[in-house]
Amino acid sequence: MDKIVRVNMSDRKISIEELPAEFQGLGGRGLTSAIIAKEVPPACHPLGESNKLVFAPGLLTGTRAPSSGRLSVGGKSPLTGGIKESNAGGITPQKLANLGIRALIIEGKPKDDGIYLLHLNEGGAELVPAPELKGLGTYEVNHKLRQKYGKNAGIICIGPAGEMLMAGAGVSTNDMEGHPGRYAGRGGLGAVMGSKKLKAIVINCSTTFDVPVKNKQKFESAAKKFTEIIRNHPLTSQALPAFGTAALVNVINEAGALPTRNFKYGRFERASETGGEKIAEIVGKRGGKGKMGHQCHPGCVIHCSNIYPDEKGEVLCAPVEYESVWALGANCEIDNIDQIAELNRLCNDIGLDTIETGAALAVAMEAGVISFGDGQGAIQLLKEARKGSPMGRIIGHGAAITGKIFGITRVPVVKGQALAAYDPRAVKGIGVTYATSPMGADHTAGYSVAANVLKVGGFVEPLGTEGQVELSRDLQIATAAVDCTGLCLFVAFPVLDDPEGLPAVIEMINAMYGVNLTGDDVVALGKQVLKTEREFNLAAGLGRSSDDLPEFLRREPVTTHNTVFDINKDELDKLFNF
Amino acid sequence: MDKIVRVNMSDRKISIEELPAEFQGLGGRGLTSAIIAKEVPPACHPLGESNKLVFAPGLLTGTRAPSSGRLSVGGKSPLTGGIKESNAGGITPQKLANLGIRALIIEGKPKDDGIYLLHLNEGGAELVPAPELKGLGTYEVNHKLRQKYGKNAGIICIGPAGEMLMAGAGVSTNDMEGHPGRYAGRGGLGAVMGSKKLKAIVINCSTTFDVPVKNKQKFESAAKKFTEIIRNHPLTSQALPAFGTAALVNVINEAGALPTRNFKYGRFERASETGGEKIAEIVGKRGGKGKMGHQCHPGCVIHCSNIYPDEKGEVLCAPVEYESVWALGANCEIDNIDQIAELNRLCNDIGLDTIETGAALAVAMEAGVISFGDGQGAIQLLKEARKGSPMGRIIGHGAAITGKIFGITRVPVVKGQALAAYDPRAVKGIGVTYATSPMGADHTAGYSVAANVLKVGGFVEPLGTEGQVELSRDLQIATAAVDCTGLCLFVAFPVLDDPEGLPAVIEMINAMYGVNLTGDDVVALGKQVLKTEREFNLAAGLGRSSDDLPEFLRREPVTTHNTVFDINKDELDKLFNF
Repeated sequence: MDKIVRVNMSDRKISIEELPAEFQGLGGRGLTSAIIAKEVPPACHPLGESNKLVFAPGLLTGTRAPSSGRLSVGGKSPLTGGIKESNAGGITPQKLANLGIRALIIEGKPKDDGIYLLHLNEGGAELVPAPELKGLGTYEVNHKLRQKYGKNAGIICIGPAGEMLMAGAGVSTNDMEGHPGRYAGRGGLGAVMGSKKLKAIVINCSTTFDVPVKNKQKFESAAKKFTEIIRNHPLTSQALPAFGTAALVNVINEAGALPTRNFKYGRFERASETGGEKIAEIVGKRGGKGKMGHQCHPGCVIHCSNIYPDEKGEVLCAPVEYESVWALGANCEIDNIDQIAELNRLCNDIGLDTIETGAALAVAMEAGVISFGDGQGAIQLLKEARKGSPMGRIIGHGAAITGKIFGITRVPVVKGQALAAYDPRAVKGIGVTYATSPMGADHTAGYSVAANVLKVGGFVEPLGTEGQVELSRDLQIATAAVDCTGLCLFVAFPVLDDPEGLPAVIEMINAMYGVNLTGDDVVALGKQVLKTEREFNLAAGLGRSSDDLPEFLRREPVTTHNTVFDINKDELDKLFNF
Repeated sequence: MDKIVRVNMSDRKISIEELPAEFQGLGGRGLTSAIIAKEVPPACHPLGESNKLVFAPGLLTGTRAPSSGRLSVGGKSPLTGGIKESNAGGITPQKLANLGIRALIIEGKPKDDGIYLLHLNEGGAELVPAPELKGLGTYEVNHKLRQKYGKNAGIICIGPAGEMLMAGAGVSTNDMEGHPGRYAGRGGLGAVMGSKKLKAIVINCSTTFDVPVKNKQKFESAAKKFTEIIRNHPLTSQALPAFGTAALVNVINEAGALPTRNFKYGRFERASETGGEKIAEIVGKRGGKGKMGHQCHPGCVIHCSNIYPDEKGEVLCAPVEYESVWALGANCEIDNIDQIAELNRLCNDIGLDTIETGAALAVAMEAGVISFGDGQGAIQLLKEARKGSPMGRIIGHGAAITGKIFGITRVPVVKGQALAAYDPRAVKGIGVTYATSPMGADHTAGYSVAANVLKVGGFVEPLGTEGQVELSRDLQIATAAVDCTGLCLFVAFPVLDDPEGLPAVIEMINAMYGVNLTGDDVVALGKQVLKTEREFNLAAGLGRSSDDLPEFLRREPVTTHNTVFDINKDELDKLFNF
C-alpha cells in the first residue's frame, strides 16, 4: 500500500493513511508542496504548531531507475516565510520508499521540553524520547544511532542549529558510509524539525530497489536506456565523476561569474586553489579514506560526490561540493581548501546550510566582525553558532538577519534566502531564477547556468537580457517536474541535450505506475507544482515585490563584466505567465 | 516663502526650493508621506541612498494655535519595510516652522565615514563635519550643542543606536529645558538618519509663534475657542496634567487590558506601583527638579508631560510616559518605577524607541536571556545595546528580530513593529488599528481605546467584534488628518466629544491660509493621506497578508477576559474600503 505516515507531535499519536486519490501521481516536491498547500495555513508562524514538515521520496525512488534516490523535504520556511522544498540524496529516500511510505508528515508540537526520535521499519512507526541526543552534532548522532540501529540504518537528523531554531538550519540525511553530509539544507527546515522537538528519524529497511513496478520488463528496458543516456553525456560521465561538482569553480571563475568578497567581484584570483581539480589532486595525494567519484546513494550512475581527507587520510568532510566550496571559500575570500573543508564539516555537524552560512559569514566580514579571508575567524564564528551565543545565533540565522543586525545594505538574498554561487549580473538567466522562484534565491530551481555558461540545452547569451525570462520559466517548470520523480537534478544535463532523455523518463514512470503520461503531461505537472507553490506564497505575503534581486545588484556593476542586473521588473513579472 | 530645504548627503549640497503647488495644503504627516511616496522607490533598501528622511511641522505649527507644536518625521522604515511617519513634540517643530521650512528633506548618503551636523537658522542652512559627536548619547549631544549654539537651540539628534543602524532607533528632539526625551521613536527612523551620517540638526530661531497668518483676528478667535474646548474636557484639563499619560496604567490595568509578561496576562498585579498617581506622589515627595504638568512645547495647554526626579531631586528622566512605563514595566514584569525611569533614560540616551525596546526585552525574557522582572538585567542589556555587542544589537533591532534570533513564536508585532500598551484581545478596536495601519502596530494611528475603554467619542464594546472595523477606520482617517495639522493627538479627546471642536480647528486653518475648507475636506484629506501610505506599502510588498495580528493572539486567550482576537481577516480587509 502507498501510505502516508502522519506523526502528531502534540499528542505523539501516529497514524497510517492511504495516499488519497488527489495525491496519486505526485511524489517528491509535487507531493510535499501539495500537502503543505492543503494543510498548512499560509499565514502561520513557521515555528508554530500549525506548520508541518513533510518528507517525500520521488515517484521513481526505491526502484532501479538510475540516480533516482532523492528526497524532498517540505514546509513553510522560517527563512523565506514562503513554501519550501529542499532536496537531498543519501540512503534514507530509498528506505522510505521501500517501506511504502510516499509521505511522512510531522505535525503539531509538544508542549513539554522533551526531544524525540522517530523509528520507522517494516513493523511500523514508533516515537521514542531521546534525551541522550539533545544538543549533539550530526556526526555524533549518526555514530550513536548506527551503533544502536545498525550500520545500514538510514538517519535523518538535525544538529544543534535546528534545535536552536536557527533559520539557516538544514536537515541531514546520511550516506552509505554513515556520514551526515547529505543535506536538505536550504530554507531553515531544520528549525521546523527542531520546533517539533524531533531530533532524528531512523529508518530500518532491508531493501533498496524493491518498490513495486507494474510493468517490469518495460521499466527495466527504459531504465537501461536512461542509464546509457546519462553515461553518454560528457558532464555526467566525465567532469562530474572526475572532479565532482567543484569542477565548476574554475569554469565559473573563468566566466567572471564567481561571486567573490560578498558579491563585490566576479572573479577570485586564488579560486583554482579551491576547485575540483585541486580537490582531486589532494585526494590522490593523501589517499586513505579520501575518494573522488563517490555515490550519494545506491544506484547513482553519476558519482559526482567525494570524501575529502585530512592530511592523515582520515575523513575531514564528506562531501565537499561546489556551492559549499564557493560560499565558504571565494565569497569569503578564503583560499585554503582544508579550511573550507573544515568549515563545511562544522556546518554539517552543527546542522547549518553551507550556502546560507557562507553568505552570512561574508556579510559579517563586510560588517567588519572578522576580516575577509580570515578562515580561523570564520571557524570561531561557527563554534559560536554551535554554542548558541548571540553572535553565533546571528550567523546561524543566515545572511538577511546578519545584514540587518549590522546595518549592511549589500546583502545577497531574495525572499530572505541567500543567492548561490553564480553572480546574477554575469549570468542573468540565473538572476531571473533567483528573483522569481517561489523558493527564494535557489540555483537548483531553474538552472539557467546550463544554457548561459555550460552551453547545455542550447545557448542564451549570459550578459544579455533577451530570452532569459523564457529560459528560466522553462527550466523552472521542467525542474518542478524532475523534482517530483526523485531523479537527481544532474540528469537534466543529458535530458536537455539528448532527445531520447525525456521519453525514457516518462517510459519509466508509465511502466512503474501503469499510466500513459506524455511529455505534455510532464510539463503540466511542473506547471501545477509551481502554481501551487506560488499561490501559497501569495497568501503568505510574498507577492510581486518579493520577486526581485536586492537593490545593490541593480546599482553596482560586477567587476568582471562591468554590468548590473538589468532585466526589468516588468519582464520578471512575466515569469508566471503560463 | 514656504520652503523645502533639501540636503543631499552624497555631495553635501543644500538647496532651497519653493513648496510646489501639489504640496500646498499639506503639512506634517500629509507632507512627509506625500514626499516619500513621490520621491522614494518603495522597493529600495531603507538604509540605502535611495531612501529619504523628511521632517515637516504641521499646518498650524509655529502659530498661537494651542498644542500645535508637533513634528512629523517620515521615511521608508527599516523596521516595517513600509512607509513611516513618526511624530514628536519638543521645541524644534515651531522653530522649523518659524524659519519658513515646511519640509526638510535629507537624501543621498556620504561615501566616506564622516559624521555631520546640519545647522539651520535665519541665515540659511549649513552642513558641517561633527566628528566630536560620534558615538555620543543624546544627553551629551544636547549638552555640547546647547553650549555651542545657545540654550534655546532646537536640537534634533540620534544616539549611538541610530549611528549603528538599529531598527529600533528613534529620532530625538529636545524640550524647553534641553532634555532630549521627546521622540519620534517608532519605526527605526533614527537608523535612516544614521545611514545618512547625520548625527544632529541644530535649529536657531528667535521666534516661536510668528508664522504668518492671513486673517489674524479670525485666527485668534478660533484659537481662543479651541483652547477653551481643550480646557473644558476632563481628560485634557484634569487627568493628563495631574497624573500625566501614565494615568492610564491603572485605568487599562483595571480594564484587564494591560499586556503583562510579553502579552501573557491582561493585568499586572503590581501595576499601581508604576502608574501616574504613583509618579505624581514621587514627584511631590522628592521635589527638586521633578515636575508634573510639564509642557512638551511652548503653547501647549494640556501639560501632560513630566520630569521624573531621582532620590536627590535631580532629573532622572524627562518625561516618563505611559507607553514607556508599560513597555519597560508591566510587559517585562518590572514593578520598580525608578528602574523603569532608568531604563527609559537609557533608551532616550542610546536613542531607542521605548515601546520597541521594551517589547524586545520581554521577548528576550521569554527566551530566558534574563528573567521576567529582572530590572538590573534589562539595564545591562541596554548597556550592551549602547556598546553594539551582538546581544545589544539584537535588542536594539526590536522585538521581531529578537524573536527570530531566539526562535520565539509569541512575538507581539505587526509588520515587524511592536504592539503598544493595550491588549488587542481585550480592546479589539485597537487590535484592528494595530493590524491594518500602514505604520505597523501603532496605537496612535487610530486610538480605538477612546471608544472601547475611555468612553470618549461614544462607546463600542471592547470585547465585541461589532463596529470595531468602522471605529478604527473612522479614527485612522481622522488621525491622518490631525497629524497634518501639527496638533497634539490629545486634542482628539475634546474634538470627539465636543461638536464645536472640529469647526474650531477648521476655522484656524481657514484663517491662517485664507482657504475655505469644510469638514468633508478634512475627511478627504485624511483619506488621501492613508491611501498614499497604503499604496506605498503595497508596492513595497506589505499587502493583505501583512494586515493581521500575530498568530498567537488569535490562538491564546488573554487571561483577564478569556478571549482571543477574533475579528476575522475578511472583516479586517474591509478597513480600506473607503
